Amino acid sequence: MRLSKRMKKMEDKELLRLMELADDPNMISFAGGFPSPETYPLKEIKESFLAVLERYGQEALSYSSTSGFSPLRAKIANRMNEKYSTSLTEDEVIITSGSQQALDMSGMLFIDKGDMILCETPSYLGALNIFKAYGAEFLEVPTDSKGIIPEALEEKVRKYGDRIKMAYVIPDFQNPTCRCWTVERRKEFINIMKHYDIAILEDSAYSDITYEEMNRPPLISLDERGQVINCGSFSKIFCPGFRVAWICTKKQMIEKYMMLKPSIDLSSSSINQRMIDMYLEKFSLDHHISQIIELYRRRRDLALETMKMYFPDSVEFDKPKGGLFAWIRLPDNKNARELLELALERKVAFVPGGSFYSKNGKENEFRLNYSNMPEDKIVKGIKILGEILTVFLR
Amino acid sequence: MRLSKRMKKMEDKELLRLMELADDPNMISFAGGFPSPETYPLKEIKESFLAVLERYGQEALSYSSTSGFSPLRAKIANRMNEKYSTSLTEDEVIITSGSQQALDMSGMLFIDKGDMILCETPSYLGALNIFKAYGAEFLEVPTDSKGIIPEALEEKVRKYGDRIKMAYVIPDFQNPTCRCWTVERRKEFINIMKHYDIAILEDSAYSDITYEEMNRPPLISLDERGQVINCGSFSKIFCPGFRVAWICTKKQMIEKYMMLKPSIDLSSSSINQRMIDMYLEKFSLDHHISQIIELYRRRRDLALETMKMYFPDSVEFDKPKGGLFAWIRLPDNKNARELLELALERKVAFVPGGSFYSKNGKENEFRLNYSNMPEDKIVKGIKILGEILTVFLR
Repeated sequence: MRLSKRMKKMEDKELLRLMELADDPNMISFAGGFPSPETYPLKEIKESFLAVLERYGQEALSYSSTSGFSPLRAKIANRMNEKYSTSLTEDEVIITSGSQQALDMSGMLFIDKGDMILCETPSYLGALNIFKAYGAEFLEVPTDSKGIIPEALEEKVRKYGDRIKMAYVIPDFQNPTCRCWTVERRKEFINIMKHYDIAILEDSAYSDITYEEMNRPPLISLDERGQVINCGSFSKIFCPGFRVAWICTKKQMIEKYMMLKPSIDLSSSSINQRMIDMYLEKFSLDHHISQIIELYRRRRDLALETMKMYFPDSVEFDKPKGGLFAWIRLPDNKNARELLELALERKVAFVPGGSFYSKNGKENEFRLNYSNMPEDKIVKGIKILGEILTVFLR
Repeated sequence: MRLSKRMKKMEDKELLRLMELADDPNMISFAGGFPSPETYPLKEIKESFLAVLERYGQEALSYSSTSGFSPLRAKIANRMNEKYSTSLTEDEVIITSGSQQALDMSGMLFIDKGDMILCETPSYLGALNIFKAYGAEFLEVPTDSKGIIPEALEEKVRKYGDRIKMAYVIPDFQNPTCRCWTVERRKEFINIMKHYDIAILEDSAYSDITYEEMNRPPLISLDERGQVINCGSFSKIFCPGFRVAWICTKKQMIEKYMMLKPSIDLSSSSINQRMIDMYLEKFSLDHHISQIIELYRRRRDLALETMKMYFPDSVEFDKPKGGLFAWIRLPDNKNARELLELALERKVAFVPGGSFYSKNGKENEFRLNYSNMPEDKIVKGIKILGEILTVFLR
């Protein structure tokens, strides 16, 4: 059969391959962006589920409303308001089936073929892939350890202004680099962008996974124009298996997303939304998150110590202050895709950094996830990588 | 902010309005395509859920694989093979988040702006809406009480052949008309289509809801070319709140859908897939379906008797042999959208037929769902409609 032209752009099977690597039980996988299953609160989920069936009966098994379960939307708004001094209402929240769906919907909502999306470089490959499917071109803005670089941003938006429909950014513990924008950079970003008619899609999937106290107001809390669309998710801080995430933005924009939702999946799972709502009612999500953070901090420290011990000196990496990844740089002339093939032979997986560039980018970096594997496999996998690197970089 | 051009095509808020009408507890709604919540097997679902947590533990709360939970895919393939003598394997099944997602994915997979989709007229508005979003134009093929008309089909495909990428059809208890294609028409359809390089998307969402024994082989069972993509769903025969549906087609085509899935929602809910799989293992879905059918048959009969009693003689309708809807025709010069406004004032809702035509279609028809409302509301609502119609048609 004859396929659409956009399928040619989707032939990059990187994300599919990642999901499949993660499924192989013999693989030591540092590839996915997966939380650690041992953190999923089984007992509390069981209790919440039984309470949902008790309270709502069959209603919990029907279609959800388009915007999502209203008490859950109210709790998400309240949590944002408490943490970030926003003043969101439940009408400014729509539930999505995972935050990947929020990205897909944003592509559908904004992008026509040839439109430009402004993004950090590198950026989340799952976002780049779906935006490509809608025909987007990417305007890459260089990023340093403090976040997106204001001078570079200003130059790009001034030059391409009208062609740019959307900016896609991940200010907190960016995927893949784990960088966190400074407060100043956030303010400068908003101050520049407020002069342009460009939607700002702020991906906050990793915001809660932070290893030190930091002031990092989300862009939506600095936005006076109603320009920011903030996406969050329960996948990293609770469980990914429910596929419940959300978008926060002005009501007028939420209504646009609501026009799309019935056409793409009618509604998100009503029972899953109620189960999370009940969990939030009966238990403390923030206490749960603090436990996850302790675990991931230990794994981060272990991964970094092991890397320091076994990786050759020419391999560079920083200590991430939040998120699930370490971002590793090889010498300029080395290709991480070649390294991956060697690693896979020894049943160790990661993601080559080149996949995170929208155009031809650097090939000497890779992303290593430290949250998903148990401690013994972290040590074993990094030792193996160290052995391979020692030969590979010789 | 500036939106994509496709949003103009999605401004038809019909489906959104339906979902919202259905949410109003004071409304007697014949509008949705919703099953009846009292049929959802609460006790068995609770038991299945507990068994899932027992057997799989935290694994049940992780991301699912891209194609879906393997034992569930195998059960879906087996059920198709037993019922329809197909020879599907689990590799020829992919799980989707509701069958609306299967439609969205099919649009993404096949449709470029200006491509033609061949469809019955009228057809499911949720499919027309999402295909429009991908820039499809529609080639409407007239349908009579036996199904799509072969002579009309042949003329259209011969004339437009190369421009047609996909045919979208609902042979079983079509939404909205509830017509069921005869075996001959199915064979004639396949015999014509096999000469063209056109994908056939067969929507079987209502196939199991049948009130009389009928031989109605799905198109996929007649397909020797690997041309048919069959979509089915647990929403109408189990519960819609889990958002679990499926696509069956040749492995080569499943792989194309798998390339899309990570970009649109990563994967469908793993716990929901496991819960349905466990239900299928422990209980008899077919026994459950037979109970649903008994209930809907009673409601169909009650709705039709009440309509005969209270609707003016100039209002026409047939007795549906399956599915969830009655399709009602007013005299040619009457507009069902005007009727709806009068009905909504008295808290009764249905869907005007005009919404189911891809182009400007007939406005004198409407769709009435009889599965979702309890018996007393069916009688009360139809009596009110009868009173309104008596004045409206005077």
